[in-house]
Amino acid sequence: MEPLDYHAEERSKASFDVEEMKIVWAGSRHAFEISDRAARLVASDPVFRKDNRTMLSRKELFKDTLRKTAHAVKRTIELNLSEEETHTLWFYVDQPAYANLHWGMFIPAIEGQGTEEQKQKWLPMAHNMQIIGCYAQTELGHGSNVQGLETTATFDPQTDEFVIHSPTLTSSKWWPGGLGKVSTHAVVYARLRTDGQDYGVHGFIVQLRSLDDHSPLPGITVGDIGMKFGSGAYNSMDNGLLRFDHVRIPRNQMLMRLSQVTREGKYVQSDVPRQLVYGTMVYVRQIIVSEASCALSRAVCIATRYSAVRRQFGSENGGPETQVINYKTQQSRLFPLLASAYAFRFVGEWMKWLYTDVSKRLQANDFSTLPEVHACAAGLKSITTSATADAIEECRKLCGGHGYLSCSGLPELFAVYIPNCTYEGDNIVMLLQVSRFLMKTISRLVSGKMPVGTAAYLGRVEHLMQCHCEVQRAEDWLKHSIILEAFEARSARMSVACAESLSRFSTPEEGFGEISADLVEAAVAHCQLIIVSKFIEKLQQDIPGKGVKTQLENLCNVYALSLLHKHLGHFVSTGCITPKQGALANEQLRSLYSQVRPNAIALVDAFNHTDHYLGSVLGCYDGNVYQKLYEEAWKSPLNDTVVPDGYDEYIRPLLKQHFRTARL
Amino acid sequence: MEPLDYHAEERSKASFDVEEMKIVWAGSRHAFEISDRAARLVASDPVFRKDNRTMLSRKELFKDTLRKTAHAVKRTIELNLSEEETHTLWFYVDQPAYANLHWGMFIPAIEGQGTEEQKQKWLPMAHNMQIIGCYAQTELGHGSNVQGLETTATFDPQTDEFVIHSPTLTSSKWWPGGLGKVSTHAVVYARLRTDGQDYGVHGFIVQLRSLDDHSPLPGITVGDIGMKFGSGAYNSMDNGLLRFDHVRIPRNQMLMRLSQVTREGKYVQSDVPRQLVYGTMVYVRQIIVSEASCALSRAVCIATRYSAVRRQFGSENGGPETQVINYKTQQSRLFPLLASAYAFRFVGEWMKWLYTDVSKRLQANDFSTLPEVHACAAGLKSITTSATADAIEECRKLCGGHGYLSCSGLPELFAVYIPNCTYEGDNIVMLLQVSRFLMKTISRLVSGKMPVGTAAYLGRVEHLMQCHCEVQRAEDWLKHSIILEAFEARSARMSVACAESLSRFSTPEEGFGEISADLVEAAVAHCQLIIVSKFIEKLQQDIPGKGVKTQLENLCNVYALSLLHKHLGHFVSTGCITPKQGALANEQLRSLYSQVRPNAIALVDAFNHTDHYLGSVLGCYDGNVYQKLYEEAWKSPLNDTVVPDGYDEYIRPLLKQHFRTARL
Repeated sequence: MEPLDYHAEERSKASFDVEEMKIVWAGSRHAFEISDRAARLVASDPVFRKDNRTMLSRKELFKDTLRKTAHAVKRTIELNLSEEETHTLWFYVDQPAYANLHWGMFIPAIEGQGTEEQKQKWLPMAHNMQIIGCYAQTELGHGSNVQGLETTATFDPQTDEFVIHSPTLTSSKWWPGGLGKVSTHAVVYARLRTDGQDYGVHGFIVQLRSLDDHSPLPGITVGDIGMKFGSGAYNSMDNGLLRFDHVRIPRNQMLMRLSQVTREGKYVQSDVPRQLVYGTMVYVRQIIVSEASCALSRAVCIATRYSAVRRQFGSENGGPETQVINYKTQQSRLFPLLASAYAFRFVGEWMKWLYTDVSKRLQANDFSTLPEVHACAAGLKSITTSATADAIEECRKLCGGHGYLSCSGLPELFAVYIPNCTYEGDNIVMLLQVSRFLMKTISRLVSGKMPVGTAAYLGRVEHLMQCHCEVQRAEDWLKHSIILEAFEARSARMSVACAESLSRFSTPEEGFGEISADLVEAAVAHCQLIIVSKFIEKLQQDIPGKGVKTQLENLCNVYALSLLHKHLGHFVSTGCITPKQGALANEQLRSLYSQVRPNAIALVDAFNHTDHYLGSVLGCYDGNVYQKLYEEAWKSPLNDTVVPDGYDEYIRPLLKQHFRTARL
Repeated sequence: MEPLDYHAEERSKASFDVEEMKIVWAGSRHAFEISDRAARLVASDPVFRKDNRTMLSRKELFKDTLRKTAHAVKRTIELNLSEEETHTLWFYVDQPAYANLHWGMFIPAIEGQGTEEQKQKWLPMAHNMQIIGCYAQTELGHGSNVQGLETTATFDPQTDEFVIHSPTLTSSKWWPGGLGKVSTHAVVYARLRTDGQDYGVHGFIVQLRSLDDHSPLPGITVGDIGMKFGSGAYNSMDNGLLRFDHVRIPRNQMLMRLSQVTREGKYVQSDVPRQLVYGTMVYVRQIIVSEASCALSRAVCIATRYSAVRRQFGSENGGPETQVINYKTQQSRLFPLLASAYAFRFVGEWMKWLYTDVSKRLQANDFSTLPEVHACAAGLKSITTSATADAIEECRKLCGGHGYLSCSGLPELFAVYIPNCTYEGDNIVMLLQVSRFLMKTISRLVSGKMPVGTAAYLGRVEHLMQCHCEVQRAEDWLKHSIILEAFEARSARMSVACAESLSRFSTPEEGFGEISADLVEAAVAHCQLIIVSKFIEKLQQDIPGKGVKTQLENLCNVYALSLLHKHLGHFVSTGCITPKQGALANEQLRSLYSQVRPNAIALVDAFNHTDHYLGSVLGCYDGNVYQKLYEEAWKSPLNDTVVPDGYDEYIRPLLKQHFRTARL
């Protein structure tokens, strides 16, 4: 029997080589193969099923996470997977778990901030999971402002120990993943006090639970912080709270690579450059950007496939209705998101290079690119995660009513994704950092200091302040140079306008406070330019495969022109383009949508997402949506019985008028 | 002991009479009293507690709904509540339940579409809840396009019955609330077939379940459709699926007010004007708009109160950090939403008048205002619900990390609110209807047909196409006439531009398809103008109370100018305002934020929301946020035991290296 494929006709319409596009998306043939294998491994293993996740109670869900984690570790050992393969396998298990924090935060913190001796002591145990750690930084009353943390670590020279203490309610550690019920250890950030002085926030390794029976150690109060957004989603994680009542740890459990406390209690800074921490920050943010493209591609894949199955209105002579993907309203919402998925993918890829480059420089004590790299990583983290969060919800709406069902996969994807906008740097705080960098860059131009990297265009600010967009016909908008200059000019002009506004305030700080909303907009313009320019750079590479490059050209143009349309006010009011040119861009956009349309299904197939990873009845590969929705419905817990629990107490008495006839 | 109030200082800063503002918000002193009493009644009744809702399993949650519903009915009878009081009590119970559909859709459908005889037969039973009904319209494969429904009702003249049948999988009824596990009856929409012809979709009363034991009747397949977005939220509702296998009902169960089938099977249309259904539509949409202001005010209240408690950065000399509400980035995101809550409240109030007016006209066979009223109601439904859905999520983000906790109330509020964007008319489909009305209005101007009501300004299109905004200084933007003309000019110019584009296509239908995304934008501009103009009209009324009117003036200006800033591209590119005037509007906006700031807490107090209704630890009246967060955390199901279930199987073996030492 032929396998069913409701999308077969759509697939046959594609004018490019999907298999080659898969390689482009994955980044390399090697990456594709690793990823493809891990995805299938997870999909075929019944322990990793996730279709029932939103129906589990909190306790069941948490136990399911523990089970999956243990199973993943076991499989990793059995199959003797490489580090890369292991990482990819965890990725496809696709359930937030304490292990993410153990490997992603606890171990790296020790690697980055520990001395050689500390690393030798702690890392082998951590790598073997003989201890499980988390990263205890944020507190109930303190998030983004790390310097505001209240937990104290006071050195007691008499016993050569630190006393870790939570002096207030708001100093309770709050949110760390893995802390609530699992971690045996934590890297705890606390204010270092010694020698009668407060030396600010430092990291300490603290054991929390007994390695024998898992009970919290004396002085430690620890627990789960409660239910979080959505069903399933991050409720699989034991985000925790933690309070210390004068808990003592040996002095050598302060992470001492950057600064030490001596036996006598003297605070000593090492000569290791502090800037090294920025390398890690770029690394983590690069991962977040790559993951944004994953989450976005997943949502777009679901919405695109469903939009090709769903039909509505437009029936002629009783024939079938029109596929909703054929409507321009649907295309104008969906295709920019499809293009964004590719755009974020490529900028994430470029950030890997950025990380390598900055790491090399840091090792050579070259800190010259650091401010630019830091602003770039912060800004890209912010705008890709914000855009992805919004896009997932938009994709849900694009699926109409059925997008609201858990089995569409989109509610849980949204719920599990949105913390990305907050953790590792709140997105608005990140943009304010970018804008400070931009203002500084502009203020230094007068002294002839030329900006580098993604800010290099600001060196041409004089030209960008007065250049005119040359578009005369809609097709002119397809030229990379024209798009790039429009985006550069917009960003430069918005930044310069902010710099001018700032100069009118009595102090820069007052100005920063007052026009911060404008500064955020200028930062967004700068970051969008980066993404557009990296997409264009990607297109300048050699890209093999029939028709692949043409598709990417279209997507790049859709990405840039849809941004231009969305932010038309900034482009027009800064005089970068005329209203007429804005209208031409919109016209060109419509024609691009028509070119994307026949390739849409193939473009989402190129993500190579398994049905397991998608976790969506609406997005399944074969498009057999209605049959699957019907089957899924019967799994509802309420369908366990024909007559619902509560009928006798609460429905029958109503129908039989027992409330009305009873004496009241 | 003094009751604790962390917001006391904020409250003392308000420069207006909060109690008077409460009356303005409620609409009248009478409405305030009804609402205040019902809110307290619900809040003080332990059966109506909802703080544990997100922790309940689906079955527990559903049983909780049944219990609350029965209890509400009982209390209504015991307290002998009026219809208005009953309605308000249900509103404050704040949990989607089958009763909403019984009272809000099933009964009105019979009232509107039933003959006198049918009403006499069915309504008394329905009002006593001796039968419980739902509204079975949408199908698995069919939503917005009612004419595409597939369920059939074939008249059998031999037995004088209709045979109701589901001919395909996609014809399964899908989504009706109350259908899944509770309803005994449904109004089913099906294609009427008689006399060898298909007469399109009509309504039929069909009994689904036995009134004795609640089991489904022969030929009926019925069940719950499964889990929906979020925890708690709409999972309290038994949205259902329904299939018919040749189910027979007597002929007199077709709703026959507008058309009948005779004993012989002839289809006869009555002379009752079809337009009457539009009255009901306006009524329902008015309620949706009012409810948008409720949901939005709730989210804004939570975010505003929390923003005044939360502090971050800006500590000087070790003093407390700055309240986040003092940051302009926070204000520029929060205050436009606060202003929108008031704006939606007043436009909802105005729609009550609109409904009364159109009802009177319909009774007098005056259909002249109907197209305008219909477009207005559709458009306002669309933009207020879309804006509210986005705003709830924005408020959640404004609460930082803690907004992600269920106990913030915002995740569930979002999950339960978003279906408003889809039901009772998909929001994009609604806007396309508005744009069709706008295009028709413009095309008729040449023949001298003057538009009425909210479209009257299009009668001045010639002036609006060439007028110039007179703003020279930021304060000029405070003049109502200037704001109004800018919004009228933008809307008129966008509509005219669409009309011109349309004329370039060979057929209007092709044009409508191609430029539909532009048409949607033009419709949004028109609807925003309506809201702005109704807010301004409200301000022309006599509004008592110290400082109340001044506050509303500020909010009106914030609402209008923040929209102008957001849609700057349309204002500037249509030449309605210059870039310089746009910048002045932005400047004025910042100064308005400073005026709103000291009144912010009092402005959300004026909503008079109880802590029970808010359901948010972050938004509680007394502002004792951190203590409540801490207490709430310990209620997490995972904190029932110190060592989590699964430790022995899945954590201990990892720590003890059992996987590694076992032979693999």
